[in-house]
Amino acid sequence: MKRIGILTSGGDSPGMNAAICGAVIAAEQRNIEVIGVRNGFDGLLEEQFLPLSSSRVRGINSLGGTILGTSRSDRFLLPEWRRRVPDTLSSTGIDGLIVIGGNGSLRGAMALEEAGIPTVGIPGTIDNDLGGTDFTLGFITAAETAVKAVRRLTDVALSERGIFFVEVMGRNSGYIAMFVGLATGADFVNIPEAPATSEEIYTKISQAEGSAIVIWAEGCGDPSPLAEWLREELNRDIEISRIGHLQRGGTPATLDSFLGFTMGAAALYTISEGRHSIMIGTRNLQPVEVPYEVAIEPNPLPPYLQSMLLPLLNSR
Amino acid sequence: MKRIGILTSGGDSPGMNAAICGAVIAAEQRNIEVIGVRNGFDGLLEEQFLPLSSSRVRGINSLGGTILGTSRSDRFLLPEWRRRVPDTLSSTGIDGLIVIGGNGSLRGAMALEEAGIPTVGIPGTIDNDLGGTDFTLGFITAAETAVKAVRRLTDVALSERGIFFVEVMGRNSGYIAMFVGLATGADFVNIPEAPATSEEIYTKISQAEGSAIVIWAEGCGDPSPLAEWLREELNRDIEISRIGHLQRGGTPATLDSFLGFTMGAAALYTISEGRHSIMIGTRNLQPVEVPYEVAIEPNPLPPYLQSMLLPLLNSR
Amino acid sequence: MKRIGILTSGGDSPGMNAAICGAVIAAEQRNIEVIGVRNGFDGLLEEQFLPLSSSRVRGINSLGGTILGTSRSDRFLLPEWRRRVPDTLSSTGIDGLIVIGGNGSLRGAMALEEAGIPTVGIPGTIDNDLGGTDFTLGFITAAETAVKAVRRLTDVALSERGIFFVEVMGRNSGYIAMFVGLATGADFVNIPEAPATSEEIYTKISQAEGSAIVIWAEGCGDPSPLAEWLREELNRDIEISRIGHLQRGGTPATLDSFLGFTMGAAALYTISEGRHSIMIGTRNLQPVEVPYEVAIEPNPLPPYLQSMLLPLLNSR
Amino acid sequence: MKRIGILTSGGDSPGMNAAICGAVIAAEQRNIEVIGVRNGFDGLLEEQFLPLSSSRVRGINSLGGTILGTSRSDRFLLPEWRRRVPDTLSSTGIDGLIVIGGNGSLRGAMALEEAGIPTVGIPGTIDNDLGGTDFTLGFITAAETAVKAVRRLTDVALSERGIFFVEVMGRNSGYIAMFVGLATGADFVNIPEAPATSEEIYTKISQAEGSAIVIWAEGCGDPSPLAEWLREELNRDIEISRIGHLQRGGTPATLDSFLGFTMGAAALYTISEGRHSIMIGTRNLQPVEVPYEVAIEPNPLPPYLQSMLLPLLNSR
Repeated sequence: MKRIGILTSGGDSPGMNAAICGAVIAAEQRNIEVIGVRNGFDGLLEEQFLPLSSSRVRGINSLGGTILGTSRSDRFLLPEWRRRVPDTLSSTGIDGLIVIGGNGSLRGAMALEEAGIPTVGIPGTIDNDLGGTDFTLGFITAAETAVKAVRRLTDVALSERGIFFVEVMGRNSGYIAMFVGLATGADFVNIPEAPATSEEIYTKISQAEGSAIVIWAEGCGDPSPLAEWLREELNRDIEISRIGHLQRGGTPATLDSFLGFTMGAAALYTISEGRHSIMIGTRNLQPVEVPYEVAIEPNPLPPYLQSMLLPLLNSR
Repeated sequence: MKRIGILTSGGDSPGMNAAICGAVIAAEQRNIEVIGVRNGFDGLLEEQFLPLSSSRVRGINSLGGTILGTSRSDRFLLPEWRRRVPDTLSSTGIDGLIVIGGNGSLRGAMALEEAGIPTVGIPGTIDNDLGGTDFTLGFITAAETAVKAVRRLTDVALSERGIFFVEVMGRNSGYIAMFVGLATGADFVNIPEAPATSEEIYTKISQAEGSAIVIWAEGCGDPSPLAEWLREELNRDIEISRIGHLQRGGTPATLDSFLGFTMGAAALYTISEGRHSIMIGTRNLQPVEVPYEVAIEPNPLPPYLQSMLLPLLNSR
Repeated sequence: MKRIGILTSGGDSPGMNAAICGAVIAAEQRNIEVIGVRNGFDGLLEEQFLPLSSSRVRGINSLGGTILGTSRSDRFLLPEWRRRVPDTLSSTGIDGLIVIGGNGSLRGAMALEEAGIPTVGIPGTIDNDLGGTDFTLGFITAAETAVKAVRRLTDVALSERGIFFVEVMGRNSGYIAMFVGLATGADFVNIPEAPATSEEIYTKISQAEGSAIVIWAEGCGDPSPLAEWLREELNRDIEISRIGHLQRGGTPATLDSFLGFTMGAAALYTISEGRHSIMIGTRNLQPVEVPYEVAIEPNPLPPYLQSMLLPLLNSR
Repeated sequence: MKRIGILTSGGDSPGMNAAICGAVIAAEQRNIEVIGVRNGFDGLLEEQFLPLSSSRVRGINSLGGTILGTSRSDRFLLPEWRRRVPDTLSSTGIDGLIVIGGNGSLRGAMALEEAGIPTVGIPGTIDNDLGGTDFTLGFITAAETAVKAVRRLTDVALSERGIFFVEVMGRNSGYIAMFVGLATGADFVNIPEAPATSEEIYTKISQAEGSAIVIWAEGCGDPSPLAEWLREELNRDIEISRIGHLQRGGTPATLDSFLGFTMGAAALYTISEGRHSIMIGTRNLQPVEVPYEVAIEPNPLPPYLQSMLLPLLNSR
């Protein structure tokens, strides 16, 4: 392979830039050219290409977001659009594509494989919900951001003996909520894999004489009605704090920058050596090659976390 | 004076602990005893006293919140409650009181003065809305927290070419919003002192081809209707992010720890030398004595910020 | 088991407090009492005991250092001292001991096992040099601290077109250096597992027209003579920055707080269920039980990092 | 004025980029062109010019270092070099120059004034050693960096009951040391304005049963001999930690970004309105115009800090 494309797709997540950097530096070593595709699959359709060199990617390891931009393309789902991609790529001499993103992005890569384009994926999503990998890029940074917010709110809660519900990201996955809850020693954690009943939360909160912090994964629904009910039952003030989109931004945590660079280089090696239809995961701090079919399987919470530590936190 | 009480009142703010530390260390130098009063004016009524020593306050400079707890006492407003305070204090030998808090807390201190109790105030509020001082404790930490959140959101906005309204604290004051807007180079800042019209915001946002960040002080009302209108007019996604209570927590910024210690020591010196009915402010990095009447006056935004820099940001 | 001791030993590392917290909370669930031993093995000899409860450990997850104190005991190496421990423990009713520390601390625990005391270890060291675990507590926090320092130095280096040697911790292990180098995209990384020659470093640095950052693990010796030689050869200013002990302090990174709590609870479960002579490691974000013999084996750098990414960074 | 040059000179300091940003945005409002000069006065001699626009400076507020690069030019001190500048500037149509830097840089600007070139200065140095201003750009960020390092070291010191000497920047000024000492509640602060005797430090340290932190401004000389003497006298381990150059880097603290933008805009207004030979300072959070003669005067520590708080910290 002489020329490889790279794009970031879906929600941006910290570590994507490090992955771009790792791929570009590994490519230069092998005399391969890397072409950045701007704005995800949208840019692929619109031929928004940006040649990348090691001097261009210098220092981007430490930048949040993605220098290539991203999109949540709807058009790409239309067969007539997607069908055009092979011609676009062959006309620019791009022999294969590295796709950085989450579940939907990997499915896009699988569709390109069906159209005959070799692709390798890199897990870029804060949700940590892909199979075959210990970490997805951005997860630890997002958890760190949420932990810092909870630590700040804990200062306030302790000073005012207040009760806070803190909504963290995770539509289908309790990974961020569990990490935040255990890292901060929160009083209760509610996750979509095993949502608590109102009574369980009431029981726990009603015992709190002073402050209490409830970590609430967004996949558990809107906490407002429960908070309203608790306000009346307990005659106490209950605040809801939504951390929101800022969990997806910021300078990457060291682990995400490290994994990003590592995975980017591994993706380049993998695709340039002719292996594809593969996501680069990480196990034991090394890259591993994960077939797409495994990668897009849901990544359940480790059993120990869900069956041992969740009840330990919530019922103490 | 042989024994002085100290309390924190109203919303907690970073730097309060440093002020407690400074007062205790200055008191030991002068062989004065400091008695902490827990939970603000509530604790004064309920005689929740906690003797403080330099070993007890060691290291608290770096802690958010207040080790004494705080309250937003309603009872204290009732004359019959407040009338009991002089007896309580004289029975415990407390000769004067240092009150750390915002406008309402200083008014509480003024009421105690009327009852014959010498008090000295320390400005502890994130709003920077007290007269006679460059900074109130907690303001710079709150602004820093908001700036960090906006920097994270900017990563997301740039990657997705999105528009974010970021609501920061400030019910009556645009201080936090102006600092955040200027420090981050935001696209628009809306402050309660000079709220923008919908048309002004529309004009600015409609020119943004890529991302845009609007800093919105909470005193400007709920941004949701405007965002909804802009969504329809511009056919673009517009996210609202509320940073919320976490602005009041966290390890104090260096300036707040520094000013807190400085003001705490100065308050102790002032009250122990017989001067009172005074808030300790800061000018040119030194403590100054500000009469309560001046301190409780609103602290307007510096004219240069409002008349020169606000239009510069918003109309470019 | 009804009563279990817990101590921290060797250099303190971020996450130790979270491990203490996890053990105490898991113990309360099982009606087991946890007795903290102050100042490591020294405190064991001197019977410095501190009963721990869940209210005592509340919030310590977020604190750096160790609330129990630590020591690098020499006396403990003397058989006559160590021999006294079983009597001390049985007289206080302590049935087993959780030991949090690095290689030397685990060897201390093994000595106690030989004396008939059941122990379970938790890997607490910033060096990530224990076998059978993906992470030791404190490693990621230390790497994060070093990365933040390198990012600051990079700002300076870029502005002044300067060359910086940055010495990071790691007497026998290049883990921190490799993580820092890859996460920051440094120009060169020197590790004790495969120390570079002066010529290799000269070659790389002499090509840098602008700034350059060299990450230097302390196990590679003093960089001063090399820097001096390069200064003369290249006629450029070369600064050496030693990050030093502060790598061992600070609020734990989220991963360390999470792993600490997880390992602390797992250690309590393990010892209370009768399994011992075991270190709790972590694999795939779950605790695993690692025999001491495996744990004290050196933990080499993952081959991919050393054989693929190290040359990629250094020879580009 | 139609075209104004801007340069950064001397050691880089956080907030310089925000000042560039503020000047460029204010210039666009007035239809003035801003030309960046790369690498300080060196770049002026070598005509390294870079036109700046608001799109070019977008987002630089949050970046450490200076996008223009800097230098500590020796050549500029030679009259024959400096004499060439007016021709260079007039040939490129540059009517005036904004100079961002410390004392030496302002002296360079004064030399240009003598050669007939209108200049306005902005105080960019971490030392806070310029007259007529509460803050120089970078000072608060540097203090924050040092405070974070001391907080980390305090965790270690407390855990190990150790004694740390922490050397912070400040060759002629104790500003950083005093801010760090007061903000962290250090045990001793040594500043060049009033260096302590060995006996004073011995007395204080010898009373510390547990840990102790000594903040040492680099202007007080090398602490190694004293530490060596104390090691022998006290039979305790004493570590020296030098924070070093990283104090000059990093994302600017909010106050520095805010002040930078504010001063940059004010400098542009000032020079374009015909006033020059002036440094823009800040008082009460507003820009003020300070004659160069006042600005280059030493800026002593506020008397209250030196005469009241320094002895309070050191003799308690």
